[in-house]
Amino acid sequence: MDIAINNTKLITFKSDGLGIIEEGALGIEDGRITYVGKNTKLDADIVIDGHDKLTMPGLVNAHTHTGITLLRGCAQDMPEIQWMNKGIGPFAQQMKASDMLIGSKLGVMEGLRTGTTTFAEYSYDVGELVEKVYKPFGARVVAIETLNEVISKRAKMGPDELYEFGSEKGEKCLKKARKVAERYKNDPMVDYMYGPQALDMVSMDLLSKVKELADKEDKFIHMHIAQGERERRQIANRYGKSTVELLDDMGFLSENFLAAHCHDTSVSERSALVEKGVKMVGCPSSIAMIDGIVPPVEDFLKLGGIVGLGSDQAPGPGTHNMFKEMRNAALLSKVRHSDPTSMPSWKTLKLGTIEGAKALGLKGLGALKKGMLADVITIELNRINLVPSVNKPFHNFIPNLVYSSTGYEVDNVIINGELVLKDGEFLSIDEEKIKEQAQERAEVIFEEGSIPWREAGSDLVDIVDEGSL
Amino acid sequence: MDIAINNTKLITFKSDGLGIIEEGALGIEDGRITYVGKNTKLDADIVIDGHDKLTMPGLVNAHTHTGITLLRGCAQDMPEIQWMNKGIGPFAQQMKASDMLIGSKLGVMEGLRTGTTTFAEYSYDVGELVEKVYKPFGARVVAIETLNEVISKRAKMGPDELYEFGSEKGEKCLKKARKVAERYKNDPMVDYMYGPQALDMVSMDLLSKVKELADKEDKFIHMHIAQGERERRQIANRYGKSTVELLDDMGFLSENFLAAHCHDTSVSERSALVEKGVKMVGCPSSIAMIDGIVPPVEDFLKLGGIVGLGSDQAPGPGTHNMFKEMRNAALLSKVRHSDPTSMPSWKTLKLGTIEGAKALGLKGLGALKKGMLADVITIELNRINLVPSVNKPFHNFIPNLVYSSTGYEVDNVIINGELVLKDGEFLSIDEEKIKEQAQERAEVIFEEGSIPWREAGSDLVDIVDEGSL
Repeated sequence: MDIAINNTKLITFKSDGLGIIEEGALGIEDGRITYVGKNTKLDADIVIDGHDKLTMPGLVNAHTHTGITLLRGCAQDMPEIQWMNKGIGPFAQQMKASDMLIGSKLGVMEGLRTGTTTFAEYSYDVGELVEKVYKPFGARVVAIETLNEVISKRAKMGPDELYEFGSEKGEKCLKKARKVAERYKNDPMVDYMYGPQALDMVSMDLLSKVKELADKEDKFIHMHIAQGERERRQIANRYGKSTVELLDDMGFLSENFLAAHCHDTSVSERSALVEKGVKMVGCPSSIAMIDGIVPPVEDFLKLGGIVGLGSDQAPGPGTHNMFKEMRNAALLSKVRHSDPTSMPSWKTLKLGTIEGAKALGLKGLGALKKGMLADVITIELNRINLVPSVNKPFHNFIPNLVYSSTGYEVDNVIINGELVLKDGEFLSIDEEKIKEQAQERAEVIFEEGSIPWREAGSDLVDIVDEGSL
Repeated sequence: MDIAINNTKLITFKSDGLGIIEEGALGIEDGRITYVGKNTKLDADIVIDGHDKLTMPGLVNAHTHTGITLLRGCAQDMPEIQWMNKGIGPFAQQMKASDMLIGSKLGVMEGLRTGTTTFAEYSYDVGELVEKVYKPFGARVVAIETLNEVISKRAKMGPDELYEFGSEKGEKCLKKARKVAERYKNDPMVDYMYGPQALDMVSMDLLSKVKELADKEDKFIHMHIAQGERERRQIANRYGKSTVELLDDMGFLSENFLAAHCHDTSVSERSALVEKGVKMVGCPSSIAMIDGIVPPVEDFLKLGGIVGLGSDQAPGPGTHNMFKEMRNAALLSKVRHSDPTSMPSWKTLKLGTIEGAKALGLKGLGALKKGMLADVITIELNRINLVPSVNKPFHNFIPNLVYSSTGYEVDNVIINGELVLKDGEFLSIDEEKIKEQAQERAEVIFEEGSIPWREAGSDLVDIVDEGSL
């Protein structure tokens, strides 16, 4: 046996409920779980004493753009309409390809440190991130190359002017996507999806090519859906329909479709999506921060849909920490529905793990069962903010995990049977070096972006001038 | 000089903005700030190297009941109507007075660890907590003895049946409040307010005694206000008015009145409160969790009111961590108002510090200026989740503090010039012993509460039986 965790509490998700084992053990061999059950003295190359620890499946971040983590803190508290072009844009334009790598390292490192073992990474040049971040870090990744054909300067266009598409740009993106698919086709740590960014950003021509490939390869299409008024007007002006109507007409809505955000959908559109088996990923703190909106996670769940959660990008929620994301998802849902029973901890915990895996179409992941992939984390329960922890008359550590944790109670992270974090320390990731590089490059990027940022003229300029930022 | 922090970034709140000093130093002597300004090599008994650190005023938790922290995780995700009597009640009834002390130690310790230096503690027998928790811990406290005269068994009453009051109970509470006032009248670390719990829980007779005392001693009245339908019906049935109308008629609304929660107020009532100088404290994650409501913090601010933030109690938000509270306050406000510019980080940071101090009527606190009380914290900026940190074209660490931190980046806590936490470790609080006691007693309390809890029959019973909790 490679790794054993003895004498531990377990959340297995083995049954319909949480499958809690109060005194158990877990064994791992060759990347798979080989034992999960009542406590026994398992012997292994690495033995973890699970006393005072909770052992559970690793978290699944079902939608993230880690490449822009160097821009953390650059565009919050501003009107949505300014966010992309006046908030992010002036700094993003200063970034080199290598800055995306450093940012991704920082973001993935934050995710790993706080218990995320699977990342659905949505990015341009995603192959670079897979090769230089996810593979060396030992993190499980679903790679989605951003497919975008817009060649107009969107920043300068009115909302009803139609974007121009360039098929060459689309072809180039698609080639990159295909390359990732080919390169990692036998790698158990890397899966992929096709990622037409949004319905207003790609041509029908590219979309039909994508659909053909996805069908042939039995892969998902992962698209940002119904993101707001700008998209709605583009789609209505160009096609005379809504995003969901058009996707339905095109035959895109299926079990192999993962829709991100979805906040500009109607009740009947959400019903249609769920009926066709479309999966959803919600990024509640990102959408709350950027748009002041709570995405319809609970609505999808109530319709019987499968939903995962994602951190989206650092300049927004500020963080790639799925424990924070779970807490906020639950709180925001409660106020969206004026109902404290909305998104209870026991359901939210599943969205962050097993339901996230399902949303990504990953099999054999997200629960602790014999034969499943060994993506496992342990959590120190004996922390100021998680004490006390009782088993009777119920397991109060379930709500505490979601509502009281910070994510940094995670002390061991195992992915595909390999230990990535041990006792809170990374085994082969040079945390200090990455932070240093991130700091160094960010100073340059923000410095170089200073004048363009001021010229872009967002509302934040006045805030800075009055000394509040 | 007693303590010096050299070579540090500072948020001083010295000006209308944040008063940021990018390379500064801070000196402390005899409990007061004696130097704050540009970096210089200050010499002192204790010298803290502020490299990579941010130094700012300690956080102010303007409304908390730490005594029930042992019940963390006992009553979330349930209908509001069940929360008190079927959620908290069955366990609270098993608690001894000593359990309130252990819970308070745990809660205050969590607050201190995450940078809170002032706590407005609202509790029965608050004098016990002051003597046995706050004073030995070296934490600044505003002590509010809960004044409650209800002698009816509220759990069994319909919402329109009027509670019966017992003046003896009220007298007893008031005597305790007076005792605390007397005992600590010369203690700079302890202040007090009068705390009639809510307008439906005290008689007019007690209220007028309280008012007379508060006026004579120039002290605040701190009351839970407009907490929902049950209170509204009690007040309407008994007095034919709303809570705010009645308080106004009684002459209670003044600058010496601190109103907690306020979610069941109308626009015109809030205007009336602010006009009279009434201060508000909001507990957004508590009220979101228990009621599915966002308290009207932003509404008060827009009217020009003074607002602080509070953690309320652990069985609710799950935590006494003001950094978490700030993040949630901002996010929840953004969705309440469908506006991403609502409660921006630079304002929220003030609510958690200087505005909280104002809401509590504390003078000389909440900013870093020469002569002010030395309640100061330092924060490690070189953490995975706070990197990068830049000064130009603005200070991105401001949003990152509010949105990306966990609270555990706080590494030094100084209260009234005394170091309480150093390099992340408590100097004279035995963290392990308190956690051990908390765990031990919680196991007994939850065990003893098991049957009463099941008999009370909340919706959670079914959840437990299906294996989800």
